[in-house]
Amino acid sequence: MSLFDFMIAAGAGDARAGVLVTPHGDIETPCFMPVGTRATVRTLSPRDLSGAGAQVVLANAYHLFFRPGADTVAGLGGLHAFMSWDGPLLTDSGGYQVFSLGASARVSSGGVEFKSVYDGSRHFFTPELSVSVQERLGADIIMCLDQCPGADASPGELRQAVGRTADWAARCRARHRRQDQLLMGIVQGGTNEKLRRESAQRTIETGFGGYAIGGLSVGEERSAMLEALALTAGLLPADRPRYFMGLGDPAGIMAAIAAGVDMFDCVLPTRLARHGTAFTSAGRLNMRGAALARQDGPIDAGCRCYACRSFSRAYIRHLVTLKEILGLHLLSLHNVTFLLDLTRKAREAIMQGRFSDFMKSAPEF
Amino acid sequence: MSLFDFMIAAGAGDARAGVLVTPHGDIETPCFMPVGTRATVRTLSPRDLSGAGAQVVLANAYHLFFRPGADTVAGLGGLHAFMSWDGPLLTDSGGYQVFSLGASARVSSGGVEFKSVYDGSRHFFTPELSVSVQERLGADIIMCLDQCPGADASPGELRQAVGRTADWAARCRARHRRQDQLLMGIVQGGTNEKLRRESAQRTIETGFGGYAIGGLSVGEERSAMLEALALTAGLLPADRPRYFMGLGDPAGIMAAIAAGVDMFDCVLPTRLARHGTAFTSAGRLNMRGAALARQDGPIDAGCRCYACRSFSRAYIRHLVTLKEILGLHLLSLHNVTFLLDLTRKAREAIMQGRFSDFMKSAPEF
Repeated sequence: MSLFDFMIAAGAGDARAGVLVTPHGDIETPCFMPVGTRATVRTLSPRDLSGAGAQVVLANAYHLFFRPGADTVAGLGGLHAFMSWDGPLLTDSGGYQVFSLGASARVSSGGVEFKSVYDGSRHFFTPELSVSVQERLGADIIMCLDQCPGADASPGELRQAVGRTADWAARCRARHRRQDQLLMGIVQGGTNEKLRRESAQRTIETGFGGYAIGGLSVGEERSAMLEALALTAGLLPADRPRYFMGLGDPAGIMAAIAAGVDMFDCVLPTRLARHGTAFTSAGRLNMRGAALARQDGPIDAGCRCYACRSFSRAYIRHLVTLKEILGLHLLSLHNVTFLLDLTRKAREAIMQGRFSDFMKSAPEF
Repeated sequence: MSLFDFMIAAGAGDARAGVLVTPHGDIETPCFMPVGTRATVRTLSPRDLSGAGAQVVLANAYHLFFRPGADTVAGLGGLHAFMSWDGPLLTDSGGYQVFSLGASARVSSGGVEFKSVYDGSRHFFTPELSVSVQERLGADIIMCLDQCPGADASPGELRQAVGRTADWAARCRARHRRQDQLLMGIVQGGTNEKLRRESAQRTIETGFGGYAIGGLSVGEERSAMLEALALTAGLLPADRPRYFMGLGDPAGIMAAIAAGVDMFDCVLPTRLARHGTAFTSAGRLNMRGAALARQDGPIDAGCRCYACRSFSRAYIRHLVTLKEILGLHLLSLHNVTFLLDLTRKAREAIMQGRFSDFMKSAPEF
């Protein structure tokens, strides 16, 4: 595991500032990982992402399995070469997509049968296949196949998902060969304390180089999410990175950092951009608003992104209301930068011993 | 006219290499001007455009008159500040849009009444209003309002358009105040030699700092277009810049440079990108083609653009077939760069006394 050293440089309560070493470079944590589902972060090029300060980018094994196919990516030199991103990459296993996109998914202890969203063809994903696909793609960090129930799952469904996720995690670990990839286990259990404890225990017993908190931010109450998050983070080994899957709202990220989470990903910043909405230090801003039509200032005066350095709210509103792609691009760039900056500033505050002050001034939205 | 010196540095037959000075910088000619109809070149940011070597960008007075409005742009510091482009800008008058977008356009000697494409409201454009709008927008180079008939126009319609265009040019010149803007006259007359001569003569008599060739590349036969182009270019003053409006195919641009044209604009490179088509030195390439799925090389091996430096055909095909915006962006960047490079290389060939050799190896598509 020496290829993936994880050093904690400073702490503040449960929060920590660390560095995760990978074959493609170091990741300073806490960090936000922009989501490039289909090997592209929507509207952003790799040079946009590195200019915005992204250190690690996420892609999705489910989508790349279908288009263009894992062997095609491998034949072109792997995912780093394919998408021209030289830094660290993480691939999600496809578990979430199988369960959220495949209404007809049929789960058994062996794996999950589902229909492709691309052409409706039927496929059978196993833990072994998911690892194999991710090995061929070649990201630095890869994820176990898990079963992720929604917030409306019954206790029985949650319990079954915890068992399957733990069984599958052991099979993923047994199948995993590439030593230049860090395999992460995933803790499920919804907002149920007993199941969270059981899931964490079983996943830790199998033993991974990093641990993800899954099955939250899927529609449950905010307070229940925060409680389950704090519980789970506290159960995970302190010396390995912790990754909260699918959380992208600023206040949620701050709470999770305070609870000791190191890594985040979410499509929220690019999805909000598609809806014409920008993160600002004063909250979300509808960029279509008529009040912006003659506003000369940037989206957010405190932001250092290219959009805020170069363009007025009035110009971006002009683009967004006319559905010009440059508007979508600039808003995506801004929103992604906003979360990259938020996690970077949180890290600086932990390093400088002023994290509790920073939390008081952090976004409340 | 000292703000807009035009120096011819070298010639080769009728072709010439020059420099047009403007308040926002020099334009080396022959040049291609990317089209930013609504104050944005589709999918490309100003830093993309300057990185690609664009020296001057075009915007459209018709579209900006409606959205966001000339006074709004003026209130935000003018078009340069609005779109964050510090280099030279040119605005088209809106004449072409009035006649091509407004099926219900009613022309009289006073001006043209038409419906807005945005909300169907009725408007009356006069030469004076067009100049006033363009003065408020503040581009370095502005265009007279002209009447541009289609290729199917009758001789009578062509004759009337030549008369109106000349009358309106005189009114534009009389109305024009801003000395920091170069006003260009436009020659009409379709492919009719007599009308071309008459239109050129009347426009030159009024007297402008530059002359455009309009009413070609509107659906006529290629050979008739080239004949009318060569005739018109030869009638225009040699000491002022000549601008062929709306020509964007590589072979056509080369022929026009050989005939003595200095400036070009066209939406073709960005429109082709939207259709998944790339310019290459071997002709147009359909980037959706299955044959590209595993091709590791760039779109065009000779191209220096960011897309060709960084990404394989296989990756761009992946993006384009999935309708990912990054694919559209990279193809637009490549196609625009292709025409910028073509005109730059033509200029170098003229400067270095090898233009006739260059013509032999130039694109035939």
